[in-house]
Amino acid sequence: MKVLITGGGGFLGQKLARKLGGEPLIGDRVISAMTLADIVEPADIAAPFPVRRIAGDISDPAAVADMFADVPDVIFHLAAIVSADAEENFDKGMAVNLFGTYHILEAARAQKTTPILVYASSCAVHGGEAPEPVTDGVELNPQTSYGTQKAIGEKLVQDYSRKGFVDGRGLRLPTVSIRPGKANKAASSFMSSIFRDTLQGQVANCPVGRDYAVWHTAPRTVVRNLVHAAELDGATFGFNRNITLSGRTDTIGEMIDAMTRVAGPKAEGRITWNHDPEIETIVKGWRGHFRAKKAARLGFVSDTSFEDSVRWFLEDDIVT
Amino acid sequence: MKVLITGGGGFLGQKLARKLGGEPLIGDRVISAMTLADIVEPADIAAPFPVRRIAGDISDPAAVADMFADVPDVIFHLAAIVSADAEENFDKGMAVNLFGTYHILEAARAQKTTPILVYASSCAVHGGEAPEPVTDGVELNPQTSYGTQKAIGEKLVQDYSRKGFVDGRGLRLPTVSIRPGKANKAASSFMSSIFRDTLQGQVANCPVGRDYAVWHTAPRTVVRNLVHAAELDGATFGFNRNITLSGRTDTIGEMIDAMTRVAGPKAEGRITWNHDPEIETIVKGWRGHFRAKKAARLGFVSDTSFEDSVRWFLEDDIVT
Repeated sequence: MKVLITGGGGFLGQKLARKLGGEPLIGDRVISAMTLADIVEPADIAAPFPVRRIAGDISDPAAVADMFADVPDVIFHLAAIVSADAEENFDKGMAVNLFGTYHILEAARAQKTTPILVYASSCAVHGGEAPEPVTDGVELNPQTSYGTQKAIGEKLVQDYSRKGFVDGRGLRLPTVSIRPGKANKAASSFMSSIFRDTLQGQVANCPVGRDYAVWHTAPRTVVRNLVHAAELDGATFGFNRNITLSGRTDTIGEMIDAMTRVAGPKAEGRITWNHDPEIETIVKGWRGHFRAKKAARLGFVSDTSFEDSVRWFLEDDIVT
Repeated sequence: MKVLITGGGGFLGQKLARKLGGEPLIGDRVISAMTLADIVEPADIAAPFPVRRIAGDISDPAAVADMFADVPDVIFHLAAIVSADAEENFDKGMAVNLFGTYHILEAARAQKTTPILVYASSCAVHGGEAPEPVTDGVELNPQTSYGTQKAIGEKLVQDYSRKGFVDGRGLRLPTVSIRPGKANKAASSFMSSIFRDTLQGQVANCPVGRDYAVWHTAPRTVVRNLVHAAELDGATFGFNRNITLSGRTDTIGEMIDAMTRVAGPKAEGRITWNHDPEIETIVKGWRGHFRAKKAARLGFVSDTSFEDSVRWFLEDDIVT
């Protein structure tokens, strides 16, 4: 089977590609080829199958057609303009997150093979008038353009699945922490940098207090869940193909304490605590507490501690 | 103030235009001009202000720019491809209901005047895993492409309002019955024709049983509610600008009995009861029971009986 990963140059796309390169299976089906597509040409990964790497913008239908040249059986659609970027650059967010997702769905539909499509939605679709904790079945109330565009993508994935154009599965990802690499324009970027950067001797700023609750997941766990989403029989989702993915809640303070228990007290001393009104406006519109019952029933997994996340970061990602 | 009505040639657009022509006020602001736009040039209406009538397709941004030439202060966005049509012609539904709504929002945004935009959403955004009755705050679970596209329009209206591009208010309209005119491609068309056509001596088919529950509103009432939506201060909606509009529930049997009480027993004898699997699939995905608490709190009104709807149809719409 052939796999396409959009956002295949991003940290999550690269981790997913490396995982599938190492274990070239989705369920009991062997991966025969992979396309990694991103706005710049993705890095290569080690794999027993050919890996095609493409630079292209999903807001351009012709670029999307190129990504689909191999007729993929499974598409992981991870490409997106992140939250603070989409908030600052409204048209860019619409072009990539809404119209780009539409182009991906149209390209998949044009194949007439009903490919599996795993869509990375976000817990940012929730907020506002939603209850605390957020349970399955609550009205999506995004407080950002990013969350709005992700929610619209969900509705499209749902309807394209109902029509039989794709076999879609949408996962509302928790904040992925500890995210490797450099800080990006996600408003949640600090939720990784205060661990990642301070563990590597640099300072990092936390714009919220220690009591701010984060709904999060480790990179290893979310990669495992993305593969699981592709392995499931679509019918097990029932009518609604979009679900709140499993995660766990810790406050920033609890996460810092976990880091200290695993890696000692030095890193915490490198955190600064300066306000950032723009970031605070966005992240205070998000929710920290969820009950992801449907995801648990479908076999998706969550972390048992943030200590694990710190250990996995030290094992997988630290630049030495 | 200047008013634009998209779908201004449709039965609802025409009724709204005539109402505003007769009482040229929205709140305490006097209407100075009106544009009626539709896919074919709308019929003229009597009004103390100039009425511009335009034929244009909202899926074409240039046509939308023409509709906005007068820089409207209030936009009633009613234009849509109806349910069975959008289900049969997927791309046409997407072009008009999703991209057309986007073009309307972009044209309104380009004005930089933050116009009021009243968006006709639909109770078809609900269904599937939603509880019965459907309460405010339940996840939108549309079972049709029409409902999906309406739900996406809601999310756009919400985010464009949050960004200050428009001052949006979305109303999820109940099935409007008794709808005058000819049968159309709405799957709900029979919910009007079994009254409208039989009262005028013609036969009409009912594809569901007498116990099928309909969430409905009379044309007079929904026109009053559309105007009310434009009159409200946007802030009274709170964060969420899209609401389930007030309506009432009766079964098809109760509605027929109401018709008989008002207009005698002859009409019921003209109803045929033949199955129509395509229509049944669509309408059985809809919901008949709602609790529209937020709408009631905001002063929207519902009918007190279907007898009223029959009387109003005989007064307003019957072709003699």
